[in-house]
Amino acid sequence: MGESLTEFVTETQQPGTEVLRPAGALERRRSAGRQRDGRPGSADGHEAEMLLARTRAAVDPVLRAALETLPVPMRRIALHHFGWQEADGTPAAGGSGKAIRPALVLAAAAALGGPEAREVSVQAAAAVELVHNFTLLHDDVMDRDTTRRHRPTAWAVFGDADAILAGDALQALALRLLAEDPHPAAPAAAARLADCVVELCAGQHADTALERCRPGEVTLDETLAMAEAKTGALLGCACAIGALYAGTGEADVAALDAFGREAGLAFQLIDDVIGIWGDPHRTGKPAGADLAARKKSLPVVAALTSGTPAAAELAELYEAPRGEEDLEHIALTVERAGGRDWAQGQAADRMARAMRHLACAVPDPEAAGGLLALAEFVTRRSS
Amino acid sequence: MGESLTEFVTETQQPGTEVLRPAGALERRRSAGRQRDGRPGSADGHEAEMLLARTRAAVDPVLRAALETLPVPMRRIALHHFGWQEADGTPAAGGSGKAIRPALVLAAAAALGGPEAREVSVQAAAAVELVHNFTLLHDDVMDRDTTRRHRPTAWAVFGDADAILAGDALQALALRLLAEDPHPAAPAAAARLADCVVELCAGQHADTALERCRPGEVTLDETLAMAEAKTGALLGCACAIGALYAGTGEADVAALDAFGREAGLAFQLIDDVIGIWGDPHRTGKPAGADLAARKKSLPVVAALTSGTPAAAELAELYEAPRGEEDLEHIALTVERAGGRDWAQGQAADRMARAMRHLACAVPDPEAAGGLLALAEFVTRRSS
Repeated sequence: MGESLTEFVTETQQPGTEVLRPAGALERRRSAGRQRDGRPGSADGHEAEMLLARTRAAVDPVLRAALETLPVPMRRIALHHFGWQEADGTPAAGGSGKAIRPALVLAAAAALGGPEAREVSVQAAAAVELVHNFTLLHDDVMDRDTTRRHRPTAWAVFGDADAILAGDALQALALRLLAEDPHPAAPAAAARLADCVVELCAGQHADTALERCRPGEVTLDETLAMAEAKTGALLGCACAIGALYAGTGEADVAALDAFGREAGLAFQLIDDVIGIWGDPHRTGKPAGADLAARKKSLPVVAALTSGTPAAAELAELYEAPRGEEDLEHIALTVERAGGRDWAQGQAADRMARAMRHLACAVPDPEAAGGLLALAEFVTRRSS
Repeated sequence: MGESLTEFVTETQQPGTEVLRPAGALERRRSAGRQRDGRPGSADGHEAEMLLARTRAAVDPVLRAALETLPVPMRRIALHHFGWQEADGTPAAGGSGKAIRPALVLAAAAALGGPEAREVSVQAAAAVELVHNFTLLHDDVMDRDTTRRHRPTAWAVFGDADAILAGDALQALALRLLAEDPHPAAPAAAARLADCVVELCAGQHADTALERCRPGEVTLDETLAMAEAKTGALLGCACAIGALYAGTGEADVAALDAFGREAGLAFQLIDDVIGIWGDPHRTGKPAGADLAARKKSLPVVAALTSGTPAAAELAELYEAPRGEEDLEHIALTVERAGGRDWAQGQAADRMARAMRHLACAVPDPEAAGGLLALAEFVTRRSS
């Protein structure tokens, strides 16, 4: 592969929402024509959508069976969080997230070990999804977020204590799934997932610390490191666990981890761009929401640290008392200070790095198609 | 063994603090004379103190090494919680708890597999201690407890978010220790420990739910089940993990689990008695503290559900607005309603059951000496 930055094109999907795509990636996938397992591949997110649907079909039964082992009060909270049950116990229509992390586990296993490896890594994929959801439960408590996936968060319904306990229980379930998995890769996967939890905790800590800082105190390196720990780590871990289940060597496991991390950072950068300029109908987030909350997202910190006159103006705007402010004016100031361009360039750069790592471990573009489709998919959406 | 309730004697150690001891147990330990490993055994808690000191010496380096792997902010909180570091980063004198749970792991391994089994179960013992401490960190947040082991709790020093995150990280470290342990019992131990975490969460949930109930709504069965989940489960799990590392069969593992659970319940009952009538100098808890907080501890619930006239009086006292109340009068009312006698009888009963389970798995009294000494020790102390 080896795309350089200049090989990336930025195209406007709809007003206000840019997506980044490596030139040629699409063609490569199209030329592959069929996926490894014989199903037709597809472009523009359709292949990713199909992979995600297949992942849900394979992983959801494992997740549901794991949640069924919980004692009633914990199970109630967990089923509500996953969108499978209302607070009163009646069944709910779903909405348990897009399953991107378990899809990465399965796609990485398939890319390096074929359909057999994909099949034996379903339990590990479920473990990764449980860890993701445990961190969501706890992050929502800490961040006082009242809505997730268009539903009230667990702490808002059940209280802080129960949301914390349900999160604790989900982490335990995740590690139990791996402890019970007879596959020889399971212990290494469990160790890796546990390390990832520690990194996620450090990332969440850094995020809350960052939000408490004054605008002038934040550095871009810290913010990037935070985003890597908070978002990149689990995407990398998911890919690495898939590689472990495929039985590959350490170098390929590390390359898959790096692929997931870089793709995760690209995702976060695009998510942050959408959080400022995005289309609320498409994202479920009102445009400017991150600015209204004075969030020190990546484009904002890039702008604040740009050394431009607009940077100083932005710092002032961020320190002013909140109220009937003009969010469009703040967004424009971030843009004038170069925050938007930087974030888009950085996202393209991260995607290019991700694909270089992927090409190292999976030189066959056909085999890499699934992972590539998922990486492209996550950099086009925001939740 | 097979003690019946009548074989138990209640002796007064010091004013206000009764301890329960099976008649004959002491003699048996004395007659054993020497422990399995050739060191002289001892009575009246000295043997237990020695076992705990040996446990600390073996397990603390593993714990410290595990904490060293944490990113700086998480490490700081964890070292403070363990009493190894002050909030400002200077070394602290310790006070990281009595290490009863890891001591039970090692003693169970030694009882069923000799010194070799003891030696290979040190990592698992550290994992159990990490789980215990993760639950303490989270429980303190939920219960708003500001002091633990005579030091300010983590949330009181670092805030809720960081205390939650440090707890999450400790759970991950615990499971990582087992995932990295090459011993063939490690996966089964990890699965068991994960199940135990779920039970601990359910126990903590039940405890907070119970405290929100009105005095008339609580049943004794619920309260006992809560205490078993909250206190018995991890003591049972510790013993079961020791048995797993000794390579014993399922029946012995289950018997050791039951031993630890019953001993844990006996501990909780005695702890609750001390929480009402105990000596504050000995326990670090002012007498009547549980009553001042209107805690629905086991003796209180036994009293409330006794159907006596004193029960109705106690319910009224518990519902009255808090203020300059006469705690001695409340304590006397619990006693008149039979709460104290019930708790002491129940503790004796639980200890008898514990020893029957122990005798099934470890018929040799000499081999069982360490576990017996620890079980007696925990029912004599309160923190």
